[in-house]
This record gives sequence, C-alpha cells and structure tokens, in this order.
Amino acid sequence: MIFALFSYQGSIETGIVSIDKTAVTPFRVLFADQGFAAPKDINTLIENYDTFCPVIERLLKEKNYSSIPLKDIKLKSPIPYPKRNVICLGKNYADHVKEIKGFTGGPSDIPDHPIYFTKAAYPCIGPEDTILRHKNATRKIDYEVELGVIIGKKGINIPAHEAESYIFGYTVGNDISARDLQKQHVNWFKGKSLKTHCSIGPWIVHKTLIPFPICLNIQSRINGELRQDSNTKNLIFDIPNIISDLSKGMELIPGDIILTGTPSGVGLGFDPPKYLQPGDKIECSVEKIGTLTNYLEE
Amino acid sequence: MIFALFSYQGSIETGIVSIDKTAVTPFRVLFADQGFAAPKDINTLIENYDTFCPVIERLLKEKNYSSIPLKDIKLKSPIPYPKRNVICLGKNYADHVKEIKGFTGGPSDIPDHPIYFTKAAYPCIGPEDTILRHKNATRKIDYEVELGVIIGKKGINIPAHEAESYIFGYTVGNDISARDLQKQHVNWFKGKSLKTHCSIGPWIVHKTLIPFPICLNIQSRINGELRQDSNTKNLIFDIPNIISDLSKGMELIPGDIILTGTPSGVGLGFDPPKYLQPGDKIECSVEKIGTLTNYLEE
Repeated sequence: MIFALFSYQGSIETGIVSIDKTAVTPFRVLFADQGFAAPKDINTLIENYDTFCPVIERLLKEKNYSSIPLKDIKLKSPIPYPKRNVICLGKNYADHVKEIKGFTGGPSDIPDHPIYFTKAAYPCIGPEDTILRHKNATRKIDYEVELGVIIGKKGINIPAHEAESYIFGYTVGNDISARDLQKQHVNWFKGKSLKTHCSIGPWIVHKTLIPFPICLNIQSRINGELRQDSNTKNLIFDIPNIISDLSKGMELIPGDIILTGTPSGVGLGFDPPKYLQPGDKIECSVEKIGTLTNYLEE
Repeated sequence: MIFALFSYQGSIETGIVSIDKTAVTPFRVLFADQGFAAPKDINTLIENYDTFCPVIERLLKEKNYSSIPLKDIKLKSPIPYPKRNVICLGKNYADHVKEIKGFTGGPSDIPDHPIYFTKAAYPCIGPEDTILRHKNATRKIDYEVELGVIIGKKGINIPAHEAESYIFGYTVGNDISARDLQKQHVNWFKGKSLKTHCSIGPWIVHKTLIPFPICLNIQSRINGELRQDSNTKNLIFDIPNIISDLSKGMELIPGDIILTGTPSGVGLGFDPPKYLQPGDKIECSVEKIGTLTNYLEE
C-alpha cells in the first residue's frame, strides 16, 4: 500500500494511493462505517499499524471505495513534523565521494564507517513546496536526491538480518544543502538545516511493495536536465548495514526518517559548480516510489 | 521562577521550585481553584507562558501555597522528550579546544564559526538517572558539563541584541560522549546520541533570575573529584552570538535545548584519558542553577 497526507477541500487528510498512482482513497471514507477514526497523520498510522493493517486489508477486499483523482488534491509532505531530526548518511555512493573529494575536511576517500548527521526539518516540506533561498545565510544551495527509509517500530542493537522488520516503508528525499555553511561549521548540521531545506514525498510506499534487496533507479533533474542517475544497489553501506550500525547503542523509533545518501551529479560536483538558481525546478525520483518536485524561491 | 518536572506519589507533575531550592509547589495545587489545568509538561508551560505567567505571579502573591519538600519527590528531566534533537556547540571554550587538539579531524585551533551538532535524546535523562554503558558500541564514555539554554519563542534571523527575548530559561546539561564513535563517524552525531547519553536538569531557571551577560561558574566532579572548573564568561561564542548565528536561516522553536559547549577537564583531555568507569558518580554544576547528578551503569 501507498500512504499519503493531502489537503482536499480545505481539510488535511490521510489516505491510500491507488497502485496506478492516479487516485487516493481517504481513510475517512474507508473507515466511515467502522466506528473508528481515520489516523490523523502518518505517524499515527505507523505507530498503530498492527491494528490498522488487517482492518484496511479486509475493507479493501470487501468493496470498491470512492476515490479522489490526484489532480483534485494537494499532496503534502507525508511527515511534515518528524518526532526528531531527520537522520542522513553522508558520502554513501562511491561516485559522489569522488566528485566532492576534499570538500568537507573529513576523510576524502571511501569512509570506513557510515557518516551520520541530522537535519532540522520542522516543518519538513513536501511535493510542489517552495525551497526558501535565505540570501542572508547562504549563496550555495544544492540538491541531493536520496532514498528515504521510514522506521516502523522501536529498536536498538538491531541485527542486519532483522533490519527489514523494523522498516515501515520508503519515500524520496531531497537533502537540500547550503554548501558554504556545511563547510564553515565543520559538522554539517547547520548547512543542512535551513528552513524548508528538507523535502520528502510524494508519499510513503509500504515495504511490502519493495522487497529486499532494494535495487531502485534514483535520479534528479534540474529544469528537466538529468543531473543524478544511479541505483540504490550502489550504496556503500546498504540498508541492513545502516540500520544495524546506526542502532548500535542508539534507539530508533517509529516515524524516524533515514535519508540514505546521494549519488554523483550534485551541483557541487561540477566545475564550475551548478548551484540552484532562483525559480529552478528540482525533480527527485526513485523507481517504484515516484517523483518529488520542488521549486527554489524566485 | 524555577520550574521542575517530578514524580510524587506515583504521578508525574509540573511545579515551581522555591527560591531556596528546598521544596516544590505543584501547579496542581496552585491552580486548584482557578478552573484551568496545570501544564502537563514543561513544553506546554513554555508554549503558553504568556498566559500562565501573570496568573502564576498573581496567585503566588495572594497566599502561601502548600509545598512538598524536595526530599519527598523524584525530580525528572525537565524536558524528557524534546520536540527535536538537542542542539550542541563544539569547541566553545578555548582551554577545551587546546586539550582536545587534533582529536576530531576538524580544525584544531579556535573555530572561526560556531560548530553545531545534534544529539538524539529520546528520552533525555535527568537527575539521578543512570547512564547506560552500551559495551557493544563504545569503550570511551566521557562527560561534558554545559550551560543549557531553553528557547521560549519561535524565531528566525534573530539579531544578537534581541536574543534574550527568545530565551525561556537555563538548565545544566551533561553532553555524554562516546569518544570512539565521535571520531569514527566523522560527524559527531552518532557518538553523541547513544541511548541515555543526554542529561539535563535538575530544573529550568527562568531567565528573569539570571540576567545578561551570563557569568556563571561551571564545574564537573567525578566521584567528588573536581575535573572541570570554568565560567560561562569564557565562551568563545556567547549566547547572543549563538542565537543570532544559529537562527540565521534556521528557525528556533519553543522548547529547543541548546547546550553551549564544555570547558577543559573532560576525560579525553587527560594523558592517559580518564574515561568514565562503571558506577562513577558524575556531578555537573552551574552557579545559580544547581547540580545535575548521574551515575554510569555498574
């Protein structure tokens, strides 16, 4: 199943996107005669999925529910207010490590251990939202398409072979980066955390639709021009490895968002660099999930 | 005023600590005849402080309310579940920069710009709580006493001269650090985020009790032995500077916790290093606020 947060006729709703990705059935409609409320947001759905899942599956088998064409709704970031910062991987595709060699002051070769940092994302923006330029703070805004993993249940010291059972699903992320600040402040947090500089969406695809191992084409386009083009099979640290290593001594919680790193082709990787320009259209795509589109403020 | 979260007779309550720090008046008692509920947690108090403050001040003038001796309650971390990761400053006292020279791979001299990173703190532990050892993940657990700033209202691009108006109050923090992980993962997030490795408390002192500039003695003791001993006037980037620089393009929100950096005397700074040992008692103190005590797991 594919889960979305959207606005329709002035209300924010949660719902299920059709497999052909052309329409959405609101939980409000699905649960209308069931005597319990639709999950108010996607985190509520994730936290109570063991309860919701069998009911949803049964109802969907019983009859065809009315749905709303996607063109009539406005998709929102599926998790606009994450419970804590979005966790990101740095330097997790070999071709990207090569293109940014020497940039951030850390080891410039393939890392021996995953590099983790966080993004403040409060709010985390979503489909069609505007990325603010913050001209007083940065002149070097860059894009990074990433596969996002959404954690489904609490866990610490998770063995790699059990990692999949802790995942709820997958999304597309754009780890928008202020390169000047990223470098200036040594640790990357501040350069990754300007307001509106984290985008995820267009929805969350449940893990049952994308079984392990995760081999998905991943691309970004700026004003239609292909910039990044790789496959998640090229991750240096794959998803079981990330979840196992990250959770060693650190507890993951339902709703945690992990952005797994970006392949080569970011603006910084060009000579001269191709940072985002006012009005640019940024499209981040991951196969089987979809395309997340944002625009840089004019 | 000094605000605390505590447990008493099986319930978690919020309340006001007496100026002599010997007793606490629960908001439940204070608001008993006022027709509105006590704030359920400190974040609720902070978010609604403009409403609560005049009522509290009026009530406290009207009569003496019954209070509970501190010895009869168990203080809790004032903000056990922060809305997002705790924001920390690295290398913000010159003597500490010197003692850890060369450790983290970043610039080893006085930084030109503040170094920010975050800690996952979910939960954030508090007074008398146990710090877990996570033997499978680290062998080098260290302590760092810090002055904690609690943000009181939303703000972005805050001028330094207005910084104080965005502060709610102050607390003591222990930025517990797994030095091996901090180094291994390049960015410091993972080494700073093991479960129970963020402690704040014993309470929050409202900013009206500690006017600018903030010149407070700051110390830590391990099993009674003085290890860190400085004053917050020695911060490289002072509080107005931090809030102004951090909020440039990045929005601060009520309840945000900023740990402002640690002075020299951490375990890593000794030769050989003095990392924490099982059962160690760690006392972190900031003048006018109090002492935050924790124990490393046996």
